[in-house]
Amino acid sequence: MTEKEARKLKSIGDLSPFFEPESVAIIGSLSQIWFGGQAVLKNLHDFGYSGKIYLINPSYDEVQGVRVYPTIRDVPETVDLAIIVTAARQVPSIVKDCAEKGVRGIIIGADGFAEKDREGTELQNEVVEIARRAGIRIIGPNTVGTVNTATGMVTATYLIGYDKIKKGGIAFAAQTGIIGPQALPYEDWGYGISKICDFGNKCDVDESDLLGYLAEDPDTKVIAMHLEGIRDGRRFLEVAKRVLREKPILILKPGRSKESTKALLSHTGSMAGDQKIYESAFKQAGIIQVNSFKELLEIPRSFSCQPLPRGNRLGIITITGGAGIMAIDTATESGLTLAKLYTETNEKLSKIHPTLVGNPSDLGPLVALGGELPYGEVIEAILNDENVDCIFCVLYGGLLPADFYLQILNDIKNPEDKPMTFWVYGPRLEGVDQICLELGNNGYPVYRDMETATKALGAMYQYAKIKKRLVI
Amino acid sequence: MTEKEARKLKSIGDLSPFFEPESVAIIGSLSQIWFGGQAVLKNLHDFGYSGKIYLINPSYDEVQGVRVYPTIRDVPETVDLAIIVTAARQVPSIVKDCAEKGVRGIIIGADGFAEKDREGTELQNEVVEIARRAGIRIIGPNTVGTVNTATGMVTATYLIGYDKIKKGGIAFAAQTGIIGPQALPYEDWGYGISKICDFGNKCDVDESDLLGYLAEDPDTKVIAMHLEGIRDGRRFLEVAKRVLREKPILILKPGRSKESTKALLSHTGSMAGDQKIYESAFKQAGIIQVNSFKELLEIPRSFSCQPLPRGNRLGIITITGGAGIMAIDTATESGLTLAKLYTETNEKLSKIHPTLVGNPSDLGPLVALGGELPYGEVIEAILNDENVDCIFCVLYGGLLPADFYLQILNDIKNPEDKPMTFWVYGPRLEGVDQICLELGNNGYPVYRDMETATKALGAMYQYAKIKKRLVI
Repeated sequence: MTEKEARKLKSIGDLSPFFEPESVAIIGSLSQIWFGGQAVLKNLHDFGYSGKIYLINPSYDEVQGVRVYPTIRDVPETVDLAIIVTAARQVPSIVKDCAEKGVRGIIIGADGFAEKDREGTELQNEVVEIARRAGIRIIGPNTVGTVNTATGMVTATYLIGYDKIKKGGIAFAAQTGIIGPQALPYEDWGYGISKICDFGNKCDVDESDLLGYLAEDPDTKVIAMHLEGIRDGRRFLEVAKRVLREKPILILKPGRSKESTKALLSHTGSMAGDQKIYESAFKQAGIIQVNSFKELLEIPRSFSCQPLPRGNRLGIITITGGAGIMAIDTATESGLTLAKLYTETNEKLSKIHPTLVGNPSDLGPLVALGGELPYGEVIEAILNDENVDCIFCVLYGGLLPADFYLQILNDIKNPEDKPMTFWVYGPRLEGVDQICLELGNNGYPVYRDMETATKALGAMYQYAKIKKRLVI
Repeated sequence: MTEKEARKLKSIGDLSPFFEPESVAIIGSLSQIWFGGQAVLKNLHDFGYSGKIYLINPSYDEVQGVRVYPTIRDVPETVDLAIIVTAARQVPSIVKDCAEKGVRGIIIGADGFAEKDREGTELQNEVVEIARRAGIRIIGPNTVGTVNTATGMVTATYLIGYDKIKKGGIAFAAQTGIIGPQALPYEDWGYGISKICDFGNKCDVDESDLLGYLAEDPDTKVIAMHLEGIRDGRRFLEVAKRVLREKPILILKPGRSKESTKALLSHTGSMAGDQKIYESAFKQAGIIQVNSFKELLEIPRSFSCQPLPRGNRLGIITITGGAGIMAIDTATESGLTLAKLYTETNEKLSKIHPTLVGNPSDLGPLVALGGELPYGEVIEAILNDENVDCIFCVLYGGLLPADFYLQILNDIKNPEDKPMTFWVYGPRLEGVDQICLELGNNGYPVYRDMETATKALGAMYQYAKIKKRLVI
């Protein structure tokens, strides 16, 4: 078996060329800083990718001090992954070059394929055919690329504008570039990512492939997917059921109306299928469905850094009585119930201050008294109540800095099966941003609205039940 | 009729002493900077209140260079409004002093009344009785106060931390202090407020009184209320129906579960009543109900600065195809429908660039081509389509600064009956914050999630129908 044949064999069903390549070729446009080859190059440098990077473009000799090769065939060493950012019509011949070179994976950033017209669809089919014969896997076309925070492997085709994403347990996949780091302030959010993948038109690598890969990825703890369509429903559910024994899967499936179903077709060429059938299949498999992009983005945060609850009995700690009550409504609508505290817990709370007794426990009346707010003692008292399975906690980002809350939270001995979520509000955006960032960076799921913070706990309870059912 | 008797008569049913006082006495604690009398004093100074301010506390002669009087009776001139921040037990005798002085309104910031226990309830009743005999209206107790941006009249009992709120059309009222400027970054949001009122325990001034006052307030265009209970449902609906002919009313009514209903009682002593009865009465009257604090806070923004739509046909302008489709789902679920563009409009769009044709119109493919994004031309083309009643527009806060968007939007000639809402996303929080602030300050309703941006248009369509029905 030649080296090329061995590589070909290894490629089938293996997505490592996309997320763990040792060498990358960037093929195509080098004319702009903020899009295309130069952007990919700068992003890879900024994020600290340590593999080899080759630039390919017949019109240049050198860009940013980096040598440019006329074709990928001219690169002297092996190339694991090619990122193509050319016009669509050039892609087939470039893929042929890649096949000849023994490339294992190709990300096609270019658009103008199946999402455009029949001609584009034919072009896309041609590309797929060439790649398949060569045993090359493709992500895209019409994708903004992938991210692997473990290696600084960032193939975003737009200049990102920041230089790191916290390593964390969330894997995102979507049929839209809007989950990419060029679109979302992951760094400013203190948001921990393992992998990102924009499927684009999904001509080859699909949701089932990625799910299989993420199942084995030790860095991924929760998988969040935006799917405009599913290529092979049976296969997907089969893989999903296996994954769900260990990792939660959250899915946002657009196409809930006739009008959006129609629009899907022209976006990524996806046939939406029957929404009701999807929904009931997801439910049966144990996949958690979310209804908005905001939820898809924010709910995984809790899964990635907090333990699953044993039950649905919620303790609420607030610093504004009104919010505590509103949170009861959103929590019960998410499947939680208000915990009835043990007498011993209320006695503990009463010793800290009489107005703290009860659930919600309200620190509000203590603010006017001055002195340090006993957040830590209150959280610990309620967290250790046998009748409490999870906690929603309201933080006031007013006069108190991020350090104050971080110190308190780090000092708490958190039982291994009691998740907490947080909502931060305050009079200055800067103060709220800072608390969200610091707490996020330290593994606390912080939200900017109480609805999502309580929904996240509801979703964790939902998955805890599913997991129990699947594992037994 | 003595001057005092004349003032007493004028006070009944008139809330101007709370929002338009010419003189204010701050009675009580002066020991802390960030809460109590000193905080109220500094807030009033910071927000530019130009009326007279008197400090009252028997233990001080002077604070922050301001003379302190032992009792309100010692103040040489008339006092319109008293703000009391003492312990609860001192309040009755202070209210007696206020009655003697001829004060017209009292805000009781102190807690420890009906929300606490039976003793507190009795104390509250005693205070109400004294005030009623003297013709004094009370807001509170257990309130963080009021705001009137027209005069810099800010009675928040906590130090706010910023020094202005944009004047605008939104009036907020709640039975929680969380709508106050000490809790929310109105300035950083570019959020336009007319009046804010925290009812607290609502011992006297209630939702019907305030609704009546706001109906006549020329600065208020939309009224948003968080109501834990309604004191006199019949009266409230009567006033509401009158107001609704001119101004929309949005209400968040907590107490959707047994558990939250129970919690309401201990928060502000509110009997929640039957939620279903409230809901159907609100609906019948034409009040718009919202289901979360986030919606109560964010949906009024569109009402305050955009015209009401004539119909529910939505045009979507996006820079990410995936988001455009997700927005169709959230929009149709909010009562909107996707507009079918005229052939002429699609021809206009095609001339700008062929990929722009259709609804949603997607600017995404143009980003990679470089050059200035034709947001202005696309918005204008769709805005002038007779089949379009309202527009949802996605802005990318990436490489483009706030000025770019502001210039474009300011140049657009907006038909008088077509509202627009915006969603901004981007890779840096700072960039997104800046666009939100600048657009907000210039009267464009900007959102940080697409769901709320489309829900706001749905709510405006809902109110447009209600208004039509009520006015005819």
